[in-house]
Amino acid sequence: MRPRGGGVAWSELMSIVRTAATFAPPVMQARRWLEGMAFPAQRPLINVSQAAPVEPPPDALRQVMADVALSRDDAHLYGPVLGLPALRAELAAQSTRIYGGTINTSHVAITSGCNQAFAAAIATLCGEGDEVILPTPWYFNHKMWLDMSGVTAVALKTDAALLPDPEAAQALITPRTRAIALVSPNNPAGVEYPAELLQAFFDLARRNGIALILDETYRDFHSQTGAPHGLFMDPDWDDTLIHLYSFSKAYRLTGHRVGAIVTAPARLAEVEKFLDTVAICPGQIGQHAALWGMQNLAQWLAGERNEILTRRGAIESGFHRLAAQGWSLLGSGAYFAYMAHPFAISSADLAPKLVRDQSILCLPGTMFCPQIDPDGTQQLRIAFANLDTSGIEVLFERLIAMHTSP
Amino acid sequence: MRPRGGGVAWSELMSIVRTAATFAPPVMQARRWLEGMAFPAQRPLINVSQAAPVEPPPDALRQVMADVALSRDDAHLYGPVLGLPALRAELAAQSTRIYGGTINTSHVAITSGCNQAFAAAIATLCGEGDEVILPTPWYFNHKMWLDMSGVTAVALKTDAALLPDPEAAQALITPRTRAIALVSPNNPAGVEYPAELLQAFFDLARRNGIALILDETYRDFHSQTGAPHGLFMDPDWDDTLIHLYSFSKAYRLTGHRVGAIVTAPARLAEVEKFLDTVAICPGQIGQHAALWGMQNLAQWLAGERNEILTRRGAIESGFHRLAAQGWSLLGSGAYFAYMAHPFAISSADLAPKLVRDQSILCLPGTMFCPQIDPDGTQQLRIAFANLDTSGIEVLFERLIAMHTSP
Repeated sequence: MRPRGGGVAWSELMSIVRTAATFAPPVMQARRWLEGMAFPAQRPLINVSQAAPVEPPPDALRQVMADVALSRDDAHLYGPVLGLPALRAELAAQSTRIYGGTINTSHVAITSGCNQAFAAAIATLCGEGDEVILPTPWYFNHKMWLDMSGVTAVALKTDAALLPDPEAAQALITPRTRAIALVSPNNPAGVEYPAELLQAFFDLARRNGIALILDETYRDFHSQTGAPHGLFMDPDWDDTLIHLYSFSKAYRLTGHRVGAIVTAPARLAEVEKFLDTVAICPGQIGQHAALWGMQNLAQWLAGERNEILTRRGAIESGFHRLAAQGWSLLGSGAYFAYMAHPFAISSADLAPKLVRDQSILCLPGTMFCPQIDPDGTQQLRIAFANLDTSGIEVLFERLIAMHTSP
Repeated sequence: MRPRGGGVAWSELMSIVRTAATFAPPVMQARRWLEGMAFPAQRPLINVSQAAPVEPPPDALRQVMADVALSRDDAHLYGPVLGLPALRAELAAQSTRIYGGTINTSHVAITSGCNQAFAAAIATLCGEGDEVILPTPWYFNHKMWLDMSGVTAVALKTDAALLPDPEAAQALITPRTRAIALVSPNNPAGVEYPAELLQAFFDLARRNGIALILDETYRDFHSQTGAPHGLFMDPDWDDTLIHLYSFSKAYRLTGHRVGAIVTAPARLAEVEKFLDTVAICPGQIGQHAALWGMQNLAQWLAGERNEILTRRGAIESGFHRLAAQGWSLLGSGAYFAYMAHPFAISSADLAPKLVRDQSILCLPGTMFCPQIDPDGTQQLRIAFANLDTSGIEVLFERLIAMHTSP
């Protein structure tokens, strides 16, 4: 925005405007590579860019939403800032079942999507100039929110298996550190953090008087059955842990914005201030849908999980064809495969070239650790979950064809 | 949150945690006055606390939402961060019709409610330590967002008619001032700002190289027909004006969170960063409902407006009974009457007493200018829009009964 008349030019002043402190949304940037493109009929677009279902929810769930719209007057009105009590209670009960320990309704708030849960958590932890540790490659929306909050994202390099090291994290902690934020199964890398590693980070966070934010958006697609960690078994888990969850992936509700934050009731009183101001309440129909889904779609969700694990299997078993061309599979799990390509160009250039040459839309590693981790230039994130096994076959063929195309 | 073990106590450090910088949501606080209350059958609760419809949308609109849930696959998936193109285009077209001037689709973004539109606007304008001028009494969520953003809300006292003075505002402008934010028709005071006054604030803002944020959430209930101001007629309106709108009040969609921000395309590119991170996209069913409402409910909305104007008339014509007891009507319009009470206690104590003694839930003036404007202690905001004329009669009777009760 240019200032007008005799006013003060904004750029002359000290403070950095919040949005100017961060980058443009990567997913929207990638979508723009598609503008004006026409894909040949024999080579339609394969869109593996976004970590989201592309199919609508099951018919029964759609019918529930229609019935709620028609029959529940209160579904059209403001609800409580922290979400529908019945949905909070259901998530508390199911979380207790999955993780063990004591998780009550008063520990749970519903948010308009899981990004908002992260934003709310940070607002209760940090002020200007504070620091939060994020393993790289990081989830770009986490980095963006920290930038816009005046919080420094401190990069924690991961090992060859893309796992973060608690001792390396300890070395990064300063008096300004407020939290460590982990995503498991990981976005973008797909890696499932072992239970012992999560426990080590929890202990580290507690020892240092900081919070552990654990984003488990993709939990329902974890390859292990049972609890992915034992953190909730600690009787005082809520003095350290802030757990984030999303209903969007499990029940295909991305268009309705329903996520959750599970933490200490005292922190939720602070979360309420943030949510009241930025959202007032989560959308009501989405909340009713999430509740019905949790209560009725367990079996369907188990099938979804199996299918995604099958697809992950196809990525892993078929990968030798790419490996023979010099590619490596750095991580796979949840919706994602994180790959290193062998070309002599940056992934930032390779990704739009893949759109043009092979009708593949995926995200370059540079979007997940810009100006931090030089490895990003060799990496691609493939959100394979929307491809069935024959689609994955086609994906491999097209990637291999890159080696023979001009 | 208490830190554990040998960690650093957060309170020892410099930065103020974002949520610690502000107060608890007033509407939720007021709702808590109802906890454990049982209201006598002959004196049921009159809830005039929240500025929101309490009736669901018209049946035809509910049917549209049901149909969208059943038949539109894409309504369940992520949409564009800045909202559905068809809704952006419709709002641009209707805004052009109402205000004149040139308002294109590229000037419009859809947000998850109008609070989020304000939050997004501030994120594109301000950094830590900047200032925004708000007339008092102010809308509390605006104040809360500024607090949480590290931005100082600079109070601009209004005159006896609750109108702000541009010259007084000029005197408050410093090198850190980034915007003046006005709400017209006003929340909480109900006052409709005259077109010339809005023009004077626009000129002031432009002259000083700052933005004018104009929140017109209640525009559809303005007592005047036609454009409430001529700001969009300026060919360069978008170098200064950030206009906010809500679909929630007009079409009774509060439970679906649909608002809008109308400003320069270059600023919307910055808004997109904020919305992507805090919401990803607005809820889809609410957006489809708003679009259908705009295209089909003009006549119904005209009837709604007439009814609310009738209710406002009942407030104004019946007020003499309260005036005889020492009350005064400071402002009325949109959903609100802003009243001064004659009791020798603060409105902060009077409001919960009204719940107990007369089953009336309204908000005290102290919630709209805490620790700033001592007048707040004598003021009450009555969101009368949900009472029909006989309900307003009962409200008056109960308020008068306060003068004879112990």
